[in-house]
Amino acid sequence: MRCAILGGAGFLGRHIGRTMAAEGAKVWSVDRVLPVAGSAPWLTGQVQANCFDLASWWDAVGGADVVVHLASSTVPATASENPILDVQTNLVGTLQLLQDMRSRSVRPRVLFASSGGAVYGRPQAVPLSELHPTMPMGAYGATKLAIEHHLRIEEAQHGLPCRILRLSNPYGEWQQPHGVQGVIAVFAHRALRGLPVDVWGDGSVVRDFVYAADVGHAFMAAARHEGEGRIFNIGGGAGHSVNDIVRTLEELLGHAVPRNVFPARPFDPPVNVLDIQRAREELHWSPSMAFEEGVAKSVEWLRTVA
Amino acid sequence: MRCAILGGAGFLGRHIGRTMAAEGAKVWSVDRVLPVAGSAPWLTGQVQANCFDLASWWDAVGGADVVVHLASSTVPATASENPILDVQTNLVGTLQLLQDMRSRSVRPRVLFASSGGAVYGRPQAVPLSELHPTMPMGAYGATKLAIEHHLRIEEAQHGLPCRILRLSNPYGEWQQPHGVQGVIAVFAHRALRGLPVDVWGDGSVVRDFVYAADVGHAFMAAARHEGEGRIFNIGGGAGHSVNDIVRTLEELLGHAVPRNVFPARPFDPPVNVLDIQRAREELHWSPSMAFEEGVAKSVEWLRTVA
Repeated sequence: MRCAILGGAGFLGRHIGRTMAAEGAKVWSVDRVLPVAGSAPWLTGQVQANCFDLASWWDAVGGADVVVHLASSTVPATASENPILDVQTNLVGTLQLLQDMRSRSVRPRVLFASSGGAVYGRPQAVPLSELHPTMPMGAYGATKLAIEHHLRIEEAQHGLPCRILRLSNPYGEWQQPHGVQGVIAVFAHRALRGLPVDVWGDGSVVRDFVYAADVGHAFMAAARHEGEGRIFNIGGGAGHSVNDIVRTLEELLGHAVPRNVFPARPFDPPVNVLDIQRAREELHWSPSMAFEEGVAKSVEWLRTVA
Repeated sequence: MRCAILGGAGFLGRHIGRTMAAEGAKVWSVDRVLPVAGSAPWLTGQVQANCFDLASWWDAVGGADVVVHLASSTVPATASENPILDVQTNLVGTLQLLQDMRSRSVRPRVLFASSGGAVYGRPQAVPLSELHPTMPMGAYGATKLAIEHHLRIEEAQHGLPCRILRLSNPYGEWQQPHGVQGVIAVFAHRALRGLPVDVWGDGSVVRDFVYAADVGHAFMAAARHEGEGRIFNIGGGAGHSVNDIVRTLEELLGHAVPRNVFPARPFDPPVNVLDIQRAREELHWSPSMAFEEGVAKSVEWLRTVA
């Protein structure tokens, strides 16, 4: 299996590439940037290209059976700041990619990283199954959902096979602690330096975290999947509160982690956890990393970087 | 109430304008084209403009309390042919409009004409309520749905009030019989000339038709609505088969209407009817035109045009 990972140089792309290569795929990274030399020895190749421009990478990769689509120019906050740019780059970019695949008559299986945290909107019940209504409450989720729809439509109308993976919050080594995403990396980075972490409300808000290498196994399972399902929640299987994260870090580091407490944000749902039963049954996938061990891996990696 | 209708010169825009004016609104048409002189005496004014460019019409209208958003550059077939253009014009255009309203700090109520035939996808059960999953099976529906999401998000994040009307198939006088939409107008036009009508399968496929002036009453009710609901199905309240249409025309015209019969199309759902209970309860709206009478109005109008 030849696999091109669009966005392969990023945190999640590296995990997925490493995992899929370990499971026997030949993996190419396609990204705006090249990985640091020698940092991704599992890759068969790497191409510096515009992920949304098929001509810039397809021949350089030599074609692919599977395309893992992680490419995104935005995170939720930046998408809300500039929804037009979010649509222009991510939605139109994906449509351009689909059009170019049609023009070239290439039909790889496209595995799309959607967002289990963004497409459903405010949970009516938890855990959230794939059948929960999709009422995104931000531009980021609206665009992820529009891309999902266009992938389903492309399969129905033009035979491009697709699988959609609605990820919860991936975490693990290589996640940068300076971004606006990745609360575990951000908290671990600050805790390691004795800095306080920012907590909104009483810290009881529960979210779903999935170890990034487990996401890699899920993509490999989706690459091989032969069933009817197209949309799969990929999460950690259980929720963890902000307080859980802080407590886990305190146990790992052996010291208290101070908190800056801010007022609770009314738009934060109290609980957001994905139901992963469908992935368990159809993909024969389940997350294998224990939360405490995964957090320990994040901490160990953060100790090695400046 | 000052009301600007984006797309006010079209078939549906004319009906909505006439109806809202009759119910007491001051109505401006905003459209790429001007209505034929004297053809819309109910209008307070009309502006030839790019609907998606607020600066081109807002001051000319003198501001509006209500914006009826019917503007669309595509129909389902053309959206599927060029989904990128569909997104660029209709989705990005609407986002541009919302951004311009934010920049100018104007906060009209936006009433959006979505598509009850396109946003739900294949019906899991009929009639389709607003809670039915939204899995569009074409680019047109995917874009309508993305616009819906962005309107809800704009209200939640920036306080722009919105109501979304998911219309079934509007019909009535002024509907052009030469387009790819509007089966009643197309059939009536051909039947009037003794030409055969095209039928796929046995003619048992059932669709939901709503008289366009009834849609106008629904928009007026949505303009005044004070409740919690944001999304409303607007349909005829009952389905009619293709055979019903032909039979109704035969009765009106007093002669048989010949048919060109083609094989049934597997992608056509056998039944697609909207559940309009929410609109009945929250908007205190219901369709008032009987099907046979509405078809007769279409026929009478078509008799007057070349």
